[in-house]
Amino acid sequence: MSSNTKLQWKGYAVHDTKRPDQFKVTDFKPKGFEDKDIDIKIEYCGVCGSDIHTITGGWGEVKLPLIVGHEITGHVVRVGSKVTEFEVGDRVGVGAHVGSCYSCQRCQGGAENYCLKAIHTYNSVYPDGTVSQGGYASAIRANELFVFPIPDALSLEQASPMLCAGITAYSPLRTHGAGPGKSVGVIGIGGLGHYALQFAKAMKCDKADALALGANDFVDTGDKDWAKKWTDSFDLILCTVNVSQHIPLNDIFLTLKVHGRCIMLALPDDALPPISSFSLTASGVLLGGSLIGSKAEILEMLALAAKEGVKSYIEVLPMKEVGKAIQGMKAGKVRYRYVLKADI
Amino acid sequence: MSSNTKLQWKGYAVHDTKRPDQFKVTDFKPKGFEDKDIDIKIEYCGVCGSDIHTITGGWGEVKLPLIVGHEITGHVVRVGSKVTEFEVGDRVGVGAHVGSCYSCQRCQGGAENYCLKAIHTYNSVYPDGTVSQGGYASAIRANELFVFPIPDALSLEQASPMLCAGITAYSPLRTHGAGPGKSVGVIGIGGLGHYALQFAKAMKCDKADALALGANDFVDTGDKDWAKKWTDSFDLILCTVNVSQHIPLNDIFLTLKVHGRCIMLALPDDALPPISSFSLTASGVLLGGSLIGSKAEILEMLALAAKEGVKSYIEVLPMKEVGKAIQGMKAGKVRYRYVLKADI
Repeated sequence: MSSNTKLQWKGYAVHDTKRPDQFKVTDFKPKGFEDKDIDIKIEYCGVCGSDIHTITGGWGEVKLPLIVGHEITGHVVRVGSKVTEFEVGDRVGVGAHVGSCYSCQRCQGGAENYCLKAIHTYNSVYPDGTVSQGGYASAIRANELFVFPIPDALSLEQASPMLCAGITAYSPLRTHGAGPGKSVGVIGIGGLGHYALQFAKAMKCDKADALALGANDFVDTGDKDWAKKWTDSFDLILCTVNVSQHIPLNDIFLTLKVHGRCIMLALPDDALPPISSFSLTASGVLLGGSLIGSKAEILEMLALAAKEGVKSYIEVLPMKEVGKAIQGMKAGKVRYRYVLKADI
Repeated sequence: MSSNTKLQWKGYAVHDTKRPDQFKVTDFKPKGFEDKDIDIKIEYCGVCGSDIHTITGGWGEVKLPLIVGHEITGHVVRVGSKVTEFEVGDRVGVGAHVGSCYSCQRCQGGAENYCLKAIHTYNSVYPDGTVSQGGYASAIRANELFVFPIPDALSLEQASPMLCAGITAYSPLRTHGAGPGKSVGVIGIGGLGHYALQFAKAMKCDKADALALGANDFVDTGDKDWAKKWTDSFDLILCTVNVSQHIPLNDIFLTLKVHGRCIMLALPDDALPPISSFSLTASGVLLGGSLIGSKAEILEMLALAAKEGVKSYIEVLPMKEVGKAIQGMKAGKVRYRYVLKADI
């Protein structure tokens, strides 16, 4: 079941969190190959906000030198002896995880993305001591549970950012009952938000409103009266704002219907703005989080994207220009996602 | 349809938020009688944490002199011409609301407790300018939507604290799917918590665990390892802790299952402890609030309490000893609820 294709294991690594836009091509050693593993020659990798939080040290300790990137697509070049879902040559993707414990109640219950021992695609440590390295690279090794077939109707570059940004938007829509009869609001239209709006529409929600659209806000949440205008309007708000002090949480709660939910899709470095119990209680609302999505949800999302023509708004750059992509992300320039085309 | 019983309108009022345990018997003028109104001769009134938050000024402006109390039971003595559910002599109760707008989507949709124009039982202003006065009194006037028949199997003093504390615990259990197959944790066993545990059991939850029981903790949430022991354990946690800095929110989230929920039942004066987006995201959990309950839920709760023998743990005092009750509440002495017996 294995192929003889000779893979190179190298990638664009950050060596210093103070210089997060300086990348050097660096060799790395993947974890030992196991019988459920798949090796993938990388064709594309999206640039995610998580990559920047990590390489700037905003999310804590970084195992330098580190190759980030977890919106990966490419072709299967080697499959382990117990792999059942894939063959060499298949078009596949990998998202924010490459492994888990496979045995806890979360893994067994189809919520492997919430496994408390999940191995993140980069900056995690495998049981054998290997540090996981991400997709700004030539190749990646992952357990087949965390590898996803890409439907023929989606190009690899279109599919790449769906594997983190896309599923991060899709999963909470699914979990929290988006569909006919429901009104969804999306705060912040960028890499996450443009998917949230499109998937909410693809799922036939009654309303899917952008509550702030980058530089061209539909509703300016900086306007003090914005929440009054939208009082009692939404069943579900997905908040993609990445900087804590810009999240108008207590106002958001005013715009929710009774038992409405606001789900935070971004992970700001700092704590959320202070919340009073009153602001949750007034309409019995809920504030929640969401972490990527399960394999079942990812397959469902890719099928829906293919069927309904959900489009990734991307700018493709050669991987060697990753530094430029990081600068563009930090400056908020990208509309809405960079995708790097592998060149090593 | 009206009775000739002559009601007196007076109650034990606080005149100074700096002296919240000093009450004087004070006359008051009820709102004008309307055709859906009911006058009730008060027999009992429970003493609720809300009463203390209000008369100490912790929740903001107080319209002094003020009579608090919103766990009221008694007998109907007068019914308006359009009242359909009650007759003079009926055993009834009133909770935390006495009116609403009756026309918004919340009122029309059976969530009148969340009406944005709800009239609280005390310290609210009616459209005619009258300040609502609570149940530490001889009588109360309320719209029939906010009056509840008390089942024969429940005594009036047993029923009184169910009308705020009881329903505050019951409603989120109902809303958030408590029942067979679900595990519920209750943090803080007092006026709210002792109902939460009993109702969770009455609703046949798989587990209903007390996570801290007053001075005799089952699980001491002050123990740093408590959350580890309970990792991934609960579908629903009801938190009744009334002082923000004593709420171990980020630990609570660790004890929830994937998409589990923590619902705040108390309303501390201060903002909740800081929350990081990470702590919500790790298991996709939700933090929420809940406000009393609808009439439908209150009737359902009273029926369940009667059927399953849910018991209010109360200490009955004559109403003239209300100051002593307030002191006992503040000192955390009561097990678990004071009920005042009307004496004016």
